[in-house]
Amino acid sequence: MNQDIISDITKAPIGVFDSGVGGLTVVREIMRQIPNESICYFGDTARVPYGSKTKETVTKFSRQIVRFLKTHQVKTIVIACNTASAYALDELEKEIDIPIIGVVRPGAKVAAEVTKNGKIGVIATEATIGSQIYNRYIQDINNNVTIYGKACPLFVPLVEEGLWQDPVTDEIAKRYLSELIDIGIDTLIMGCTHYPLIRSTISRVIGEEVTLVNPAYETALELKAMLQERGLLNQEAPKLGSNQYQFYVSDAAGKFKQFANSIIKYGILSAKTVNIEDY
Amino acid sequence: MNQDIISDITKAPIGVFDSGVGGLTVVREIMRQIPNESICYFGDTARVPYGSKTKETVTKFSRQIVRFLKTHQVKTIVIACNTASAYALDELEKEIDIPIIGVVRPGAKVAAEVTKNGKIGVIATEATIGSQIYNRYIQDINNNVTIYGKACPLFVPLVEEGLWQDPVTDEIAKRYLSELIDIGIDTLIMGCTHYPLIRSTISRVIGEEVTLVNPAYETALELKAMLQERGLLNQEAPKLGSNQYQFYVSDAAGKFKQFANSIIKYGILSAKTVNIEDY
Repeated sequence: MNQDIISDITKAPIGVFDSGVGGLTVVREIMRQIPNESICYFGDTARVPYGSKTKETVTKFSRQIVRFLKTHQVKTIVIACNTASAYALDELEKEIDIPIIGVVRPGAKVAAEVTKNGKIGVIATEATIGSQIYNRYIQDINNNVTIYGKACPLFVPLVEEGLWQDPVTDEIAKRYLSELIDIGIDTLIMGCTHYPLIRSTISRVIGEEVTLVNPAYETALELKAMLQERGLLNQEAPKLGSNQYQFYVSDAAGKFKQFANSIIKYGILSAKTVNIEDY
Repeated sequence: MNQDIISDITKAPIGVFDSGVGGLTVVREIMRQIPNESICYFGDTARVPYGSKTKETVTKFSRQIVRFLKTHQVKTIVIACNTASAYALDELEKEIDIPIIGVVRPGAKVAAEVTKNGKIGVIATEATIGSQIYNRYIQDINNNVTIYGKACPLFVPLVEEGLWQDPVTDEIAKRYLSELIDIGIDTLIMGCTHYPLIRSTISRVIGEEVTLVNPAYETALELKAMLQERGLLNQEAPKLGSNQYQFYVSDAAGKFKQFANSIIKYGILSAKTVNIEDY
């Protein structure tokens, strides 16, 4: 009997949420690294973006989403948004009875390990930079580094407008990154889930000798290790025809689906709209 | 007695709302054109922007804000947001017992009157362009014109990033406006409340012979005429020390205040945060 219950839990989906579409870069990594897992994704497209909002508001929104995901019997939750990880993870960890991880700690850990000259740059939203969360996590691990944060508020709208390879994005990247170039960082954390989509621009501008850290990749690794450790990893591939990937949004499901299909190779069959303020 | 009641109503504030800070360009025009009036402003900074969201969501948000403004005994409401005017005005008009006006109709009216060659351009958010609302209003007035709409999603983030005079904004404006230049429009409606803040860039790129219509200006004119017609105009300047201008937001009051003070000459003394989902 107990065996059955445990076996059921491993088959439960992983809940993943973000302010909108950016978290799909995390979903993409989870799909690649642990392909047996089912995912229940929520994107808060009615209230996107989070990166310019306050801790109080982002925490309230995140709490509502966690309540929604729990109605889908998720076995764990991944906060696939740097801003929500920065602002809400500590609170949410205290409030729920399943494991919850954010994208900040895994990215911070790798950056602290790979830097050679002890100069780490972080690019992210205003909120994430203002929270100093990367500084806190990195210095917990390695106290001999200095962290240089730079908010890049135009990167998200440029990515959402599709200007992934564009002279305007190059120009904005040059402005945002010039201080970090002058400082001579050797490691740069892409601290917003949209940024890996313009990775090639960022790498060209900052210089190819600088190590780029993608927290989405590191988070999927940490998620896999955590599921393994707790006996929660799904050992079997889901049955054909099962609803392995489910997508929910708070607004504009059609537009979400279109953007999502440009990020994720596996076609997103449908996205449903949820009235998130009711949770 | 009746006299007293009427005199009280004229002294009630005008409710003005927007998705965030853009509506302050409308507030600025109201302050200039009818300086005796008190204003109660609400900016939905927790859920900004509206321009990429659906009709259903924008209408729900607008309805909550109208309920909030009514708790402040406003004598009329101005929807100082093109997207909310496009999506929610028709619904809200049916539901409330005080006059309510949007920014779209006044702008449409002037454009229909001033065009000589019958080619009118409209630049706005995706939502406003998709709604075809300007087309509807303009063709109600003048059926001999053609309207060319162009969504300009990067203008709002560029304005909010402070790039009002900048080569990047010039380049983006050139891309957005090139079709309208080729078509040979003679009138261009700035159909988003942020756009008047980059009026000089828009005018330079589109050509100075093109008439720019600022719906904020036209809305303040229409508001004044409406208040006059209904006997609601405040005939006396408010007493010194009275709280003539009140500002409320759903998030980040400090940041709002800072941005607002760059738009409005009269210092904004304070902005208060409201939990708008409770309305």
